[in-house]
Amino acid sequence: MNRKALDDIEVIDLGQIYNGPYCSLLLSYLGADVTKVEPPHGEPLRARVDNGEPPELVMLNSNKKGITLNLKAERGKELLKELIEDADVLVENYAVGTMDRLGLGYETLNEINPELIYAHGSGFGEDGPYRQYPAMDLTIQAIGGVMDVTGFSDGPPVKAGVAVGDFMGGIHLAAGVLGALYQRERTGEGQFVEVSMHDAVYPTLMSPMAAHFNGDDVPPRTGNRHSGLAQSPYNVYETADGYIAIFGVTDDHWHSLLDVIGRSDLKDDPRFQSNVKRSKHADEVDRIVENWTRRYERDEIEEILLEAGVPCGPVKEISEVVEDPHLKDRKMINDIEHPSYGNISVPGLPIRLEDSDIPDIEPSPEKGRDNREVYRNRLGLSAEEVDELETHDVI
Amino acid sequence: MNRKALDDIEVIDLGQIYNGPYCSLLLSYLGADVTKVEPPHGEPLRARVDNGEPPELVMLNSNKKGITLNLKAERGKELLKELIEDADVLVENYAVGTMDRLGLGYETLNEINPELIYAHGSGFGEDGPYRQYPAMDLTIQAIGGVMDVTGFSDGPPVKAGVAVGDFMGGIHLAAGVLGALYQRERTGEGQFVEVSMHDAVYPTLMSPMAAHFNGDDVPPRTGNRHSGLAQSPYNVYETADGYIAIFGVTDDHWHSLLDVIGRSDLKDDPRFQSNVKRSKHADEVDRIVENWTRRYERDEIEEILLEAGVPCGPVKEISEVVEDPHLKDRKMINDIEHPSYGNISVPGLPIRLEDSDIPDIEPSPEKGRDNREVYRNRLGLSAEEVDELETHDVI
Repeated sequence: MNRKALDDIEVIDLGQIYNGPYCSLLLSYLGADVTKVEPPHGEPLRARVDNGEPPELVMLNSNKKGITLNLKAERGKELLKELIEDADVLVENYAVGTMDRLGLGYETLNEINPELIYAHGSGFGEDGPYRQYPAMDLTIQAIGGVMDVTGFSDGPPVKAGVAVGDFMGGIHLAAGVLGALYQRERTGEGQFVEVSMHDAVYPTLMSPMAAHFNGDDVPPRTGNRHSGLAQSPYNVYETADGYIAIFGVTDDHWHSLLDVIGRSDLKDDPRFQSNVKRSKHADEVDRIVENWTRRYERDEIEEILLEAGVPCGPVKEISEVVEDPHLKDRKMINDIEHPSYGNISVPGLPIRLEDSDIPDIEPSPEKGRDNREVYRNRLGLSAEEVDELETHDVI
Repeated sequence: MNRKALDDIEVIDLGQIYNGPYCSLLLSYLGADVTKVEPPHGEPLRARVDNGEPPELVMLNSNKKGITLNLKAERGKELLKELIEDADVLVENYAVGTMDRLGLGYETLNEINPELIYAHGSGFGEDGPYRQYPAMDLTIQAIGGVMDVTGFSDGPPVKAGVAVGDFMGGIHLAAGVLGALYQRERTGEGQFVEVSMHDAVYPTLMSPMAAHFNGDDVPPRTGNRHSGLAQSPYNVYETADGYIAIFGVTDDHWHSLLDVIGRSDLKDDPRFQSNVKRSKHADEVDRIVENWTRRYERDEIEEILLEAGVPCGPVKEISEVVEDPHLKDRKMINDIEHPSYGNISVPGLPIRLEDSDIPDIEPSPEKGRDNREVYRNRLGLSAEEVDELETHDVI
């Protein structure tokens, strides 16, 4: 089957950095025709490298057309409005109020195209006391509680190394667009869709929130242990050549682990008779386990423990993750040759719809790559007009 | 306006723990009629407390009906099939293959209801070499690279304290359901939708992947510094009473910061003339900044820096986050009185659709709360039949 879920949808994408572009990447992979619109000097991500395409941009903008457009120029505003006339969705993640100041806010665009779904991603949202705060993933992680619960009890708060704010924001925004598209089938009308990174991160605090509401006597940061300190063994253990996470949920797991590490003698030890007791003696449990893991290689341990039915996961290094055979098999990692960047792996679509093909990857556009096609074919401008727009820095 | 995006949608929710229930929570908040189906002994989350409702369950199952059903009993399977006849969506996050083994796999349910959208969340997905691996958030974070990039360069890998696997999985699954609902408007047919936590987490590695592909000479873990070590100041700094994240993107930010901390003399210091130079001297930059931050209180510093236009964010403690005035203002935090749990705050909907009301929160159901309503009104059983199902542990 060749049809994809969003085959008939056209998206104008003003997204920049991670948040907006991840939203529109998903829409594009789901079949939408996405046109990435950058200012003539390029979107902010481009400043991360001196020449050529930054890898982040290549990874987040596959399967999109690319045009340039100066939204500060009068003629640029007009052209955006013309593009909006036939579009189904606009995605943008400028700071709150930016589009209004440009005279291109939702009210204006909705008048031009009442069926338009206008999707806005931001750090803190359109209203509420923090709405004007500068928002980056770092500050969202700080204010949002992610840092408070990451790291060790005797150390400082730590940021999660993954951009949880940007990406939780981006995928929630994509879900909002999809919900609005479905609703439009009923109402015939577009609408304003809004997601803040701060809101989107909040539910991920589930375990520490539960410990807090339960009044558990645990520190906010528990390192690699269970956030309620209520499971043991549950930790990351050093091996001869790396680290492995081991998580013994049941007594059976514990007994299997003891057999494997040659400590079956401890099965009757009263300190370790139940999860509750093991959790109270977690230091001893971890010492016993790590005493064994240190003597073997990570992948060897993984094989032994999976064979014994003990849940575990090797801590893979980033260089391994980008070559992961499972992610490649599932087309989440796609090795491509980008005409300007060269060889690189780019993410695929984590949403698998049986009735849509897994998308083939087309390399992200260089800045303004599709100016001619879009401005001539879609808006009907002449070659001379396009040249003039370029000369006057409108595109 | 009272209409919500999914007002006409009926969801049968076999979700458990975090992943599936977060997906169906979003669908429910978007207007769907969601019926949470638990085994007669309750879903696994219930085992986290000895009595009453666990807070996690209360936080993730608002606005759902709750019934019990034993899918291992023949009569239980029949009842599920009857419920599926009129449903639009089934959500489940059992281990891969579980529903097939129960005789309730997609093929079977699709025959009963070809319009059914069957959504399956899992750790590693339906295919690929890891498909049978036991999957918890901890092991996904290990194998998926999250731990490798979290923590300090001279310390061990650290798990993110937020359940990034469960929640990235859950929201991508919700987006998949919404995409499939939209596609059904075109095709008239349901389909199988699948999301793995492992796939869904992969794109969040964006910054460390970019550093890797660029061949930057940086460690995988950079603590609270920029993952490419390419920005300074960029760190979490100790204050007199906590921590604050400060992120000076531009030279202007740096100069404003120097003015604020009384070190305008350093504006011309050749070590700090550009982001590139400051990044090379990040230890000195951080010492200068922290020398000042240590002398003031966190919230005082926040006020001073925001006034001066320097991006920053106080590292809020979990006890503050669950009382955050901004999140309350945006209805992301809702103080409710749960009939069994008591007073608690539960998350709202991070997706704001202008044409749908922000959902009022109805407390999560106690186990089997709506058995009578659903089995009698929806399936037409008599009071005696429902009693008998209970007696025989079918519900």
